[in-house]
Amino acid sequence: MSISVTKRSEDYARWYTDIVQKAELADYGPVKGTMVIRPYGYALWENIRNIADRMFKETGHVNAYFPMFIPESFMHKEAEHVEGFAPECAVVTHGGGKKLDEPLYIRPTSETIIWSMYKKWIKSYRDLPLLINQWANVVRWELRTRLFLRTTEFLWQEGHTAHATFAEAEEETRRIIEIYRILAEDYLAMPVYVGKKTDAEKFAGAVHTYSIEAMMGDKKALQSGTSHNLGQNFAKAFDVTFLNSENKQEYVYATSWGVSTRLVGGVIMTHGDDKGLILPPRIAPYQLVIVPIWRSDDQKARIMEEVAKIKLQFSKADIRFVVDDNEQVSAGWKFNQWEMKGVPLRLEIGPKDIEKQQVVLARRDNGKKQFVAFESLFSVVNQLLEDIQSSIFRQARDFRDENTIEVENYSDFKKIIEAGGFVKAFWAGDGVAEARIQEETKATIRCIPFEQNRKGKCFFTGGAADTWVIFGKSY
Amino acid sequence: MSISVTKRSEDYARWYTDIVQKAELADYGPVKGTMVIRPYGYALWENIRNIADRMFKETGHVNAYFPMFIPESFMHKEAEHVEGFAPECAVVTHGGGKKLDEPLYIRPTSETIIWSMYKKWIKSYRDLPLLINQWANVVRWELRTRLFLRTTEFLWQEGHTAHATFAEAEEETRRIIEIYRILAEDYLAMPVYVGKKTDAEKFAGAVHTYSIEAMMGDKKALQSGTSHNLGQNFAKAFDVTFLNSENKQEYVYATSWGVSTRLVGGVIMTHGDDKGLILPPRIAPYQLVIVPIWRSDDQKARIMEEVAKIKLQFSKADIRFVVDDNEQVSAGWKFNQWEMKGVPLRLEIGPKDIEKQQVVLARRDNGKKQFVAFESLFSVVNQLLEDIQSSIFRQARDFRDENTIEVENYSDFKKIIEAGGFVKAFWAGDGVAEARIQEETKATIRCIPFEQNRKGKCFFTGGAADTWVIFGKSY
Repeated sequence: MSISVTKRSEDYARWYTDIVQKAELADYGPVKGTMVIRPYGYALWENIRNIADRMFKETGHVNAYFPMFIPESFMHKEAEHVEGFAPECAVVTHGGGKKLDEPLYIRPTSETIIWSMYKKWIKSYRDLPLLINQWANVVRWELRTRLFLRTTEFLWQEGHTAHATFAEAEEETRRIIEIYRILAEDYLAMPVYVGKKTDAEKFAGAVHTYSIEAMMGDKKALQSGTSHNLGQNFAKAFDVTFLNSENKQEYVYATSWGVSTRLVGGVIMTHGDDKGLILPPRIAPYQLVIVPIWRSDDQKARIMEEVAKIKLQFSKADIRFVVDDNEQVSAGWKFNQWEMKGVPLRLEIGPKDIEKQQVVLARRDNGKKQFVAFESLFSVVNQLLEDIQSSIFRQARDFRDENTIEVENYSDFKKIIEAGGFVKAFWAGDGVAEARIQEETKATIRCIPFEQNRKGKCFFTGGAADTWVIFGKSY
Repeated sequence: MSISVTKRSEDYARWYTDIVQKAELADYGPVKGTMVIRPYGYALWENIRNIADRMFKETGHVNAYFPMFIPESFMHKEAEHVEGFAPECAVVTHGGGKKLDEPLYIRPTSETIIWSMYKKWIKSYRDLPLLINQWANVVRWELRTRLFLRTTEFLWQEGHTAHATFAEAEEETRRIIEIYRILAEDYLAMPVYVGKKTDAEKFAGAVHTYSIEAMMGDKKALQSGTSHNLGQNFAKAFDVTFLNSENKQEYVYATSWGVSTRLVGGVIMTHGDDKGLILPPRIAPYQLVIVPIWRSDDQKARIMEEVAKIKLQFSKADIRFVVDDNEQVSAGWKFNQWEMKGVPLRLEIGPKDIEKQQVVLARRDNGKKQFVAFESLFSVVNQLLEDIQSSIFRQARDFRDENTIEVENYSDFKKIIEAGGFVKAFWAGDGVAEARIQEETKATIRCIPFEQNRKGKCFFTGGAADTWVIFGKSY
């Protein structure tokens, strides 16, 4: 395996695909548009999943599992939903050697099947709220696919909650987008804008959609998580009513929300460099790699004895580490390989270090090395891991802020978008104006940030505006 | 919701389905043969999954994820495999609004897709062993379905490993069936026979198959986990060779193995009674339910203060509990409901208990109640949970042993099978004899147990036999 990648500045798309494959995160599946998530990539996803799952459970959500087959007729029950999703579905027409009476759609998302069940389960306000999440695979037939970012089949979680009032559904929708912000910023070290989608960009079937939007290394936007207030749309489509506390039948209020394996793509493009991946310590499968270095069997014995002590210490403290004692490749080759895989810290230990009762610690993010005495190893490792986590977050935030430019007119807007970056601007336009800007520049309104405290003049219409928005080209 | 079920002795199948639905483990999906796993059932599956996952990881396995779409041509590469699985597949013929050039089979199991990838990843003995597991949904088009036991789509794990020698593959196959035994016996409290399948019963494409076989409450067998030594069959079908340590190209050796949501069905049928589910403490979503009982607000305040202390104590000790302080139903109703859900222990606390500084603990498995002083609560709860775990295992093992009868001739064999139960018998027959017995009695050889230490006379052929086997009717 060659351990170099295309330079990021030369060909960003190629750099990305190189990293995904050379760091052994994923590979192409045999069917066009499908992806195999390899063990290292899956371990990363497992860590992200476990953090999200814990936060969902801490806020009262429970997991369940719904079938992936959706009767064709269900897809047609909610008008906007079918328009948005039916064209990109995979369809099962045969089962058990026979043609089926009704074709089955493989879920592109599960609102329809879940609300068909909620109709059976929800009778009264006492059954609400119902706060269910599922971890599942979904299928969307994509023409232009890209590992992790856009594949025919992908893994995600989809929350589907039912509430007695619009206000409660709204509160849930916002609670979740805040969980997603925490997941992105505090764990993936990926700074995000949090806000509302315009009508043009919202989910097919939603009253409104909130999203978290991150800036990738090529200054394009990655929509990294969405949370939808569905109002009563799906309850009406599936006739799900409940007896409210005033003893009247009313349609149930709904939310849905999801993050997917796309987050792995976000991590790569937020932190990676020309040497490969850089992983945030909180989600890294290995936070530290130990590379013992020796020339003689004598040295080896002494060093591995010390390594055993270090391992014991790290295991007790739940530090995730790996020892690379492969004797068939050089230390230099190992360094390159683990840098490619983005392991935050490397611990080197050789004969001289043993003499001096020390090790060398090297940071993946900035390449800095330092000698650390045995007795302070544990505390230094912990401190460095924390420092790397916050340092790569700050670096990504600075990069994003530097490349988010406030503009006051369309001509400046076009220059910024052309050059690459987000535009921050006052906005008073409508869907038609939005569509025209997209047609002319490929940029869309990524979100209307929650933080709104200024008034100004719309850069496009010139009208008075009390909201500002973030524009960008997106993945 | 009515909280009683059909009596087990009256109609076992109906009793089973009643429990699944009334304990809110699962529900029927809208497409025939599909199942919705409800939050309580999913929490149970999560616990089982986490235990298995930990054991796989402790033995060096890693998780990954492979696409669920298998090109039709792949299915045809291994002759026995296609014969075994193709007829029960669901087939996608359309995607993105167009007819596909090649139909895609939804994985009934993933040997084919995984070995097509192993061809890319395995070059030399240094790449071996490759020890990959995946947690996934699979689809098998079943005509007669049953919640958890046999559904069109189900959840499982499937391990797929690659080795340099047949001996190593064999060792792996046996390591895994032992992990399955531990999972079944030590966690699900479900005693199993562990052994080898006959050629008639082995996996389509395997050299040989090992299984764990449990006896359900109706004395029928549930095949609860299988581990296959696939030899070089799939490596040959997908042309996967490696450079061995003697520098020669050789086909890779393979294993595959799986357990599924079927295990939940096994738990229900091993331990349930006419009041509902009985869950083993080690996998129960809640190990204990706290039911506070009061008549006045004054009492309520005092009692809930004590409950808060108990909660804190249990949380710290990782005891999984739920407090049922719903004021809209009676204590009696709650008792019935939590008995239906199989929670191992119930803690009652009322005004008199507060005075006496005690609580009442009631066991779900044998109904026994006892008063326990506040200060010894924690140790008694722990001890009772352990006792319930081992006690329901012993009870199930005694039941199984009492209903496993040794026979010496076919006439006795037929009586036992007719009446219900396992037959233990010396066997020297062939596949033809096996097929005839199945045709005449519906019983099959569940397994040839690993423990073989006696010689005797075959009950069917009368020939000398050095193996004994377990026969039974199966799910």
